[in-house]
Amino acid sequence: MSNSIGIIGSGSWATALAKILTDNGHHIHWWIRNDDTIRHMQLRHHNKHYLTSVYFDTSLLSLSSDVKAVVAACDELVLAVPSAFLEDVLSMLPADALINKRVISAIKGLVPSTNDLIGEYLLKQFNLPASQYFTITGPCHAEEVASEKLSYLTFSGAHLDTTQSIADKFTGSYLQTIVNTDVIGVQLAAVLKNIYAMGAGIAHGQEYGDNFLSVFITNCFREMQSFLEKYEEQKATIAGTEPVVHNYSASAYLGDLLVTCYSLHSRNRTFGNMIGKGYSVKAAQLELNMIAEGYYASKCMHEMNRNIGAYMPVAEAVYAILWQQVHPSEAFLSLEKGFI
Amino acid sequence: MSNSIGIIGSGSWATALAKILTDNGHHIHWWIRNDDTIRHMQLRHHNKHYLTSVYFDTSLLSLSSDVKAVVAACDELVLAVPSAFLEDVLSMLPADALINKRVISAIKGLVPSTNDLIGEYLLKQFNLPASQYFTITGPCHAEEVASEKLSYLTFSGAHLDTTQSIADKFTGSYLQTIVNTDVIGVQLAAVLKNIYAMGAGIAHGQEYGDNFLSVFITNCFREMQSFLEKYEEQKATIAGTEPVVHNYSASAYLGDLLVTCYSLHSRNRTFGNMIGKGYSVKAAQLELNMIAEGYYASKCMHEMNRNIGAYMPVAEAVYAILWQQVHPSEAFLSLEKGFI
Repeated sequence: MSNSIGIIGSGSWATALAKILTDNGHHIHWWIRNDDTIRHMQLRHHNKHYLTSVYFDTSLLSLSSDVKAVVAACDELVLAVPSAFLEDVLSMLPADALINKRVISAIKGLVPSTNDLIGEYLLKQFNLPASQYFTITGPCHAEEVASEKLSYLTFSGAHLDTTQSIADKFTGSYLQTIVNTDVIGVQLAAVLKNIYAMGAGIAHGQEYGDNFLSVFITNCFREMQSFLEKYEEQKATIAGTEPVVHNYSASAYLGDLLVTCYSLHSRNRTFGNMIGKGYSVKAAQLELNMIAEGYYASKCMHEMNRNIGAYMPVAEAVYAILWQQVHPSEAFLSLEKGFI
Repeated sequence: MSNSIGIIGSGSWATALAKILTDNGHHIHWWIRNDDTIRHMQLRHHNKHYLTSVYFDTSLLSLSSDVKAVVAACDELVLAVPSAFLEDVLSMLPADALINKRVISAIKGLVPSTNDLIGEYLLKQFNLPASQYFTITGPCHAEEVASEKLSYLTFSGAHLDTTQSIADKFTGSYLQTIVNTDVIGVQLAAVLKNIYAMGAGIAHGQEYGDNFLSVFITNCFREMQSFLEKYEEQKATIAGTEPVVHNYSASAYLGDLLVTCYSLHSRNRTFGNMIGKGYSVKAAQLELNMIAEGYYASKCMHEMNRNIGAYMPVAEAVYAILWQQVHPSEAFLSLEKGFI
């Protein structure tokens, strides 16, 4: 018998993952914070706030606003809340809640208070071993899952066979899966790409064109590589091992960067575009009714890179614009000269 | 005194390069095939067929439909005709026409009858040494040069200083230049990217979405690298040297691929889009009044790769669609499974 699976979160990405699993006939336990959203879904069979066009077979759904109960009912848990809310949600769980669970993070960010990767945080807080931790990364916008456009998800875990068995639950007519053991690299790439997509949005808002954008993204891609190389070098020096080498020309790296920077579905790009047009962070947040992950990611990475020391002019420029009130035109002017 | 510079060709790319040079105050000799186009430019100060919004200071232009005369008048020649017409145009020149000239190729293709790179062809036909040959590559769409959006051009040549002196003529308020010695790699990348942009257009025409497109382009980027690695290995084996390693994360490689695949200004993408929607090559050609470079490039590369033997499923799929009447949906279905 297959393991019971749960989803924590009810935003657009959580809703897309719930669609993928239920379209494949899997029953899911689904934690949704708001009881009213649950009632609406039971009555109208869809999430009233996100991906409203997606209708669910409610016989496949066990909905609950009690996170402890959902976690207790499942062997496998998909975490799909924004990184900024993760600590809040998981604080409702006892320290032994994740014993023998497989936890699959679909979160594209770091834990803001500690700058930990999600797996590091779960190890510290819940003693979750690396063998029970998995990630789902893109390139994949929820909106195209909703419309059943062929998309690819990357599943990463310490062991290929277990990771494959999880990925198999998601594989379907409009969803292909890629499996690897590159857990750390794909998570860091997923965080970085949100910063760069914010930057791409800012560039667009500043009325740079397609020619410039292609140069900008190319330089972001190289910057992402140089950060990860420094990060792995530092880890290897401490461990006395050879540094891990990532396959940057894979979809979880370059592909995810591209779709986040180019797609009009990208919230980071949209948010950045407003900043580029002169909106303040607060005004953009109010207008869009959210803060994009790249906003938090730029601060986390700025702090993390104090120890890594990689040369990251683009990430630093985005940080300066979002957190230090540097004017976009000024920050970009100094970037322009250094691009190759 | 600065060398006199000429442009061969009057399409949109030639017109953009003429604008860049004249905006920087350089006088240019300009070969335009059609006397009527020349008369119109003298009268109305713009090219009536391409980038019609670009107005020229005609005191900086020496226009002529006599290619021999234009070549004779110049020390430096920019070649900017479609690759399919190059042999035709240069057949009007005597074999010694390029002695002591610097030739700068802005052509994004191979010589169709021989699959030679432009530099190889000029060496064979005109005995032009490598030290006198230079290339201009992107990422840069002519349309954004016309509207003076900040763009980057990559100049490559055997010697950095001479290459820099040529690049300096183009550097201006909306135009940054990047200089390197990677003459062969950037040319092959420029040819390949047209094939992949054709493929991106076909994918779009087939109604694949942004998620898929990002995976598609990522896999094209990896395929481009594996072709160039095999190509350099083979050259190195013959020469008994170490293979050249290219910087794929530079704008002339990844950047040019991105702008050609994503920009709505891309003729290759537009052409491919029609093919993806079910138009025949002939119908797309009649509708768009041109055949995109990627059409010829896919045949050249198919033939060239017989000797190289790189694994190029995407380039082969585009070739099969364009030249062997394989249906796009069939060709793409077999691609989908192999992407990572």
